[in-house]
Amino acid sequence: MHISTPNVPKGAASGLLYDQIAREIEELIAEGAFRPGERIPSVRKLSQQRRVSVATVLQAYRMLENKGVIEARPQSGYFASVRPWSPPPEPETSRPASRATQVNVSELIMRVMQATNDPSLIRLGAALPSPELLPTAQLNRCLAAAGRRPNLMASTYSIPPGNPALRAQIARRAMEAGCTLSPNEIVTTCGGMEALNLCLRAVTKPGDTVAIESPTYFGILQCIESLGLKALEIPTHPRDGLSLEALAYALDSQRVRACLFVLNYNNPLGCCMPDANKEKLVTMLAEREIPLIEDDIYGDLSFAEVRPRTAKSFDQNGLVLLCDSFSKTLAPGYRVGWCAPGRWQHKVEHLKTVTTVATGTLPQIAIADFLANGGYNHHLRRIRKLYAEKVHIISQAISRHFPAETRITRPAGGYVLWVELPQHVDSLELFDRALASGISIAPGAIFSAKGKFRNFIRLNCGNPWSPTIEQAIAALGRMAAQLAAL
Amino acid sequence: MHISTPNVPKGAASGLLYDQIAREIEELIAEGAFRPGERIPSVRKLSQQRRVSVATVLQAYRMLENKGVIEARPQSGYFASVRPWSPPPEPETSRPASRATQVNVSELIMRVMQATNDPSLIRLGAALPSPELLPTAQLNRCLAAAGRRPNLMASTYSIPPGNPALRAQIARRAMEAGCTLSPNEIVTTCGGMEALNLCLRAVTKPGDTVAIESPTYFGILQCIESLGLKALEIPTHPRDGLSLEALAYALDSQRVRACLFVLNYNNPLGCCMPDANKEKLVTMLAEREIPLIEDDIYGDLSFAEVRPRTAKSFDQNGLVLLCDSFSKTLAPGYRVGWCAPGRWQHKVEHLKTVTTVATGTLPQIAIADFLANGGYNHHLRRIRKLYAEKVHIISQAISRHFPAETRITRPAGGYVLWVELPQHVDSLELFDRALASGISIAPGAIFSAKGKFRNFIRLNCGNPWSPTIEQAIAALGRMAAQLAAL
Repeated sequence: MHISTPNVPKGAASGLLYDQIAREIEELIAEGAFRPGERIPSVRKLSQQRRVSVATVLQAYRMLENKGVIEARPQSGYFASVRPWSPPPEPETSRPASRATQVNVSELIMRVMQATNDPSLIRLGAALPSPELLPTAQLNRCLAAAGRRPNLMASTYSIPPGNPALRAQIARRAMEAGCTLSPNEIVTTCGGMEALNLCLRAVTKPGDTVAIESPTYFGILQCIESLGLKALEIPTHPRDGLSLEALAYALDSQRVRACLFVLNYNNPLGCCMPDANKEKLVTMLAEREIPLIEDDIYGDLSFAEVRPRTAKSFDQNGLVLLCDSFSKTLAPGYRVGWCAPGRWQHKVEHLKTVTTVATGTLPQIAIADFLANGGYNHHLRRIRKLYAEKVHIISQAISRHFPAETRITRPAGGYVLWVELPQHVDSLELFDRALASGISIAPGAIFSAKGKFRNFIRLNCGNPWSPTIEQAIAALGRMAAQLAAL
Repeated sequence: MHISTPNVPKGAASGLLYDQIAREIEELIAEGAFRPGERIPSVRKLSQQRRVSVATVLQAYRMLENKGVIEARPQSGYFASVRPWSPPPEPETSRPASRATQVNVSELIMRVMQATNDPSLIRLGAALPSPELLPTAQLNRCLAAAGRRPNLMASTYSIPPGNPALRAQIARRAMEAGCTLSPNEIVTTCGGMEALNLCLRAVTKPGDTVAIESPTYFGILQCIESLGLKALEIPTHPRDGLSLEALAYALDSQRVRACLFVLNYNNPLGCCMPDANKEKLVTMLAEREIPLIEDDIYGDLSFAEVRPRTAKSFDQNGLVLLCDSFSKTLAPGYRVGWCAPGRWQHKVEHLKTVTTVATGTLPQIAIADFLANGGYNHHLRRIRKLYAEKVHIISQAISRHFPAETRITRPAGGYVLWVELPQHVDSLELFDRALASGISIAPGAIFSAKGKFRNFIRLNCGNPWSPTIEQAIAALGRMAAQLAAL
């Protein structure tokens, strides 16, 4: 059989292409073009038909496999699943308040964070990479080797913009996100959170309004609160991300000083804005001269082999301040992040100097070496596959154990799931009950400046799978059902 | 002979006692009680006469030796110097403007910092410890060992308040400064600069006024500027530090939200506030409920064996926020500092969480191990002696090579000298001329919010002594003389 080639450009937009192929195959199966258990076109055949690379088709098939739509059988090829798993529906686009608001969720967040950091609990709350999945031993060997080099400067300040070897490696890697960056445009930071802080301080003054996604990472809310800024929450779709229409409306109706978005695998939604939308977003903001702080901390954790682009890759005016970190992929404890602050380069370097002076020297050298010797790519390939599996397994467990009306997201990267419980379930109550049972979760209210999302929870899928986790999901499901029945 | 015992309490105030003894011996020599070349009382004898420990007398004698007032002769004892070196006079107490002011010196500071970080220059500008004098190899071995421990948590976040082992070691060391601190009262930070930032943010709001010493470290000025605060400069004596009378007057005449002082070996003055004054200062501020941020970054670099106390050691109200770092003593590139923020503990932990999340895990463990195994004390003994010698040698070189009207400070700790040139010498002009000759210095103007101290320079004595340095001092002296003759 032949599948028609859609009108999608090749090359740069290949992130879209595999997604397109996957969606079409999924539709064909749903429509009965392939019956359960029937063989679908081989990778080679489809690649010829569609004139795309074998890798692109493989990505599409792997994505469908993770979703339970198709199955791979050794030596035989790919087949439509015999018992296709149909996941619960997705949540709808968020509907936040249309006015900017003072942020005031810090007390609740501190309580949740303390719980999520308690190692005696089953930690489904924190969005932390599982230590077992990090290349800690290899990185620490790089660190030890860096410390043995007969160079006395290794323990002195690595003043802004930061270690040249690391900045060179970051610039090379940025190409994977479609981005041409010079090492001189990069400033290394004490983790991604410092990058966000410095960029926010560079482009705003206390009292200004910053547009954010809804829901968004609570650390971003806290950062905005601590700098005396106001947050304007923009409706966000759980799969395609921020609504550009809603953003345009918001920008036309009130004074927004800056945007701060997590476009690739937003935490907690896991949504990913299509690259074409990123280009539109950058154009829209350039017309209005509004800076975009882009937090790409999950971008490398795409479940597909080709990662999505950054908005920065479309930036021609220096208005995008790209922030990133190695905390979610390599080593949270190393405290190494970076930003490419565009036209605010000088300002960010200055703020960095007067805030923390410099980023740790040896951790920067160790990560630069790890990147240079190929360790990072190898590691990424491994964890992308693992996280895709875990997200799928936990999604299935939720569909088994949670109340029927539960909705969950379909992340294509990262390791968190955003779960919508029946409407009158209070997730703070669920948080307290789960804690009493030795399970930590993140209640939805901490992901909104206004404490919305009261019937949502975020679950971390970054832990190694074990019967304990299955039992914890089952227990959470029972508690949710009890609360739903109240 | 018998020297009368002054009315000084023993024990806690021993930091004062050796100083008192040294001053008395110096006066007796100046007054002719001991002629040049004449033997002074042996250490043992004076210790019996004064009923103080041998160590205290040794400290006093070492101090006088460093100043060139007495000489040790092997097997024979101590003698009044044959050719006592008489240093140039000290600068006078500063007379800053009596009104709070917006700080705006950052552009100049950035220019100076870039110059001071150029390794091709003879670096008399930066107040950096010389890499050769740091225990880099030992520390890096501790770091490598920490990374080899079979504990996966070693690369995960060390969330505030920070690594428990390091906080325990810091609490033990605080006793040397007369301070009883629980590890739970300590928050580790990304260097001392982050500690100052967090504490300032905890106790002020943009627009508030902060009292500082005059002159003070330019990083403090930049920090105040970047947070939108105003600086009120308080007259400061080059040996005894901040004038309490002037401070009391200032506090009574305007609204001061917080004080930020470097009481022990202030940079650039090298002055040290007598412990008795610290107690008065703490009482004065407690009466007015004004928080004191105490930057003790040079406190461990006392030239005497017993280091001075911190103001925090007199604090009974939780109003003193003590800030410190290992950047000046161990490893600038490790980015490990700490603070003990008193009643703002919770606020500082929160601000730390939303600014840089955590301090690097392995660097904290490495420093904790280095402190626990005694490496730090051993290292301190060595560098205190070295820095005392270097400060003395550079003072002598200045008195040989600089214009006759030059004045210099008499630091009893740290490694910087504050040099007052003839009144109409423009130190910015000297900075430019020195740079053209391959020498970096720090011009006085960067140590004041209002650009005062135009005829002052700060010299770093932390480099290993070499003929190059002597030549650089001679060249600076010639340039200063040329500028004085204009």
